[in-house]
Amino acid sequence: MQRWKLTLEYDGTDFVGWQRQAEGISVQQCLEEAVYKFSGETVNSHVAGRTDAGVHAAGQVAHIDLEKILDAKTVRDAINFHMRPHLAAVVKAEPVADDFHARFGAKKRFYRYGILVRPAAPVLGGRYVWHVWTELDVAAMREGAAHLLGTHDFTTFRAVACQAKSPVRTMEKLDIAEKEGDPRLGRHIEIRAEAKSFLHHQIRNIAGTLKMVGEGKWAPDDVKRALEARDRTKGGLTAPSSGLCFVRVEY
Amino acid sequence: MQRWKLTLEYDGTDFVGWQRQAEGISVQQCLEEAVYKFSGETVNSHVAGRTDAGVHAAGQVAHIDLEKILDAKTVRDAINFHMRPHLAAVVKAEPVADDFHARFGAKKRFYRYGILVRPAAPVLGGRYVWHVWTELDVAAMREGAAHLLGTHDFTTFRAVACQAKSPVRTMEKLDIAEKEGDPRLGRHIEIRAEAKSFLHHQIRNIAGTLKMVGEGKWAPDDVKRALEARDRTKGGLTAPSSGLCFVRVEY
Repeated sequence: MQRWKLTLEYDGTDFVGWQRQAEGISVQQCLEEAVYKFSGETVNSHVAGRTDAGVHAAGQVAHIDLEKILDAKTVRDAINFHMRPHLAAVVKAEPVADDFHARFGAKKRFYRYGILVRPAAPVLGGRYVWHVWTELDVAAMREGAAHLLGTHDFTTFRAVACQAKSPVRTMEKLDIAEKEGDPRLGRHIEIRAEAKSFLHHQIRNIAGTLKMVGEGKWAPDDVKRALEARDRTKGGLTAPSSGLCFVRVEY
Repeated sequence: MQRWKLTLEYDGTDFVGWQRQAEGISVQQCLEEAVYKFSGETVNSHVAGRTDAGVHAAGQVAHIDLEKILDAKTVRDAINFHMRPHLAAVVKAEPVADDFHARFGAKKRFYRYGILVRPAAPVLGGRYVWHVWTELDVAAMREGAAHLLGTHDFTTFRAVACQAKSPVRTMEKLDIAEKEGDPRLGRHIEIRAEAKSFLHHQIRNIAGTLKMVGEGKWAPDDVKRALEARDRTKGGLTAPSSGLCFVRVEY
């Protein structure tokens, strides 16, 4: 038996999310069926971030166990061959020790949330952003985001259906960057979040809240008050899944 | 009558190119029909870069004349409303003087050509790159590109069907940049070209040639020899349209 660490990229638009669902195709099903097709082995994949429907990944990590002993190139290329035409690919396959665990061994997870600010609808890369019409004050968003750094009870920013035992998480980084480019053609704002782990919808709820701060509907300090309320109804709206991308994992 | 400068973004994948063709939808047709639908006016648009089928644009510029006097927001939003669901949008509409000409007034045109180097097929942004499997030596590509800077007869790098009167062009910039990101997930190489004007297929032919230099199939100096041959058959292959994007125009 060999354990494999798989680094995956996928476009979440047409997937029902990472996990198998009654209807539609999930990334997990796409991956596990591709493994079966080339190896004849039925595997259970474990993943670092169980992304929701529509959420993308640039460096998602999963692990699987294969009985057959194969080389890394074969594992990568054979899975990719069988995942087509779905928009998912194993970018890297690495043999790892039996105690490697994609989910429980993750030390840090990195997400980004993209916002395109302009009146015209997004075209290039339009699948990967949240389209916002109104101008956003990035300095105010940064000030609001600063209240979320560190260890807090994030009940206000987690989905009501979130199954995590504790709502306490440590936000190690929450940067608001602006991508280079001609601002007259639209501003590309990116929220970059780093933590050991996140709650369900945590980044999308934070992105929705920071957008309200950017618009001036909330003052930066309102983020602090919302956080301290420990009440989902006191948080901002859930930003759409299209803007979210799981960037990478550190082990 | 009011002349309008329109800055356009489009995903070239599903267009037959800028210019109208007997079959398929062109960006020009898409734009002119949208103008007719909201204004009832039949316009002839003029464009800075007549991009080929599959070529994208982030900041293409066209001009049109409208009899009706309208505000910029109305022109932009009404055209965009009627261009849907095609992947094209007017990002900016500006009233300009009658002697503004999108094509003949252009002082500098900027293009980029994106290459993704890795074994796995592209996923995120896969519509906007040329997928190359083999490693590329960027330093060698830069050395090869240096031979193309300045004023030359670019016959070797223009399409046989090119209708420009002269094959002489001045390449003001031809940079090979590598985008930030985790190289283990693939390298994103970008060729950035600037000139007053380009010949038909010039950048794609240069990209195809520089890829051969990157692979080591050509030495950097072979680019000089090919250029001096003034013979299309001595140049490298034409790189696919998907990697090319018309970035912006200076007037």
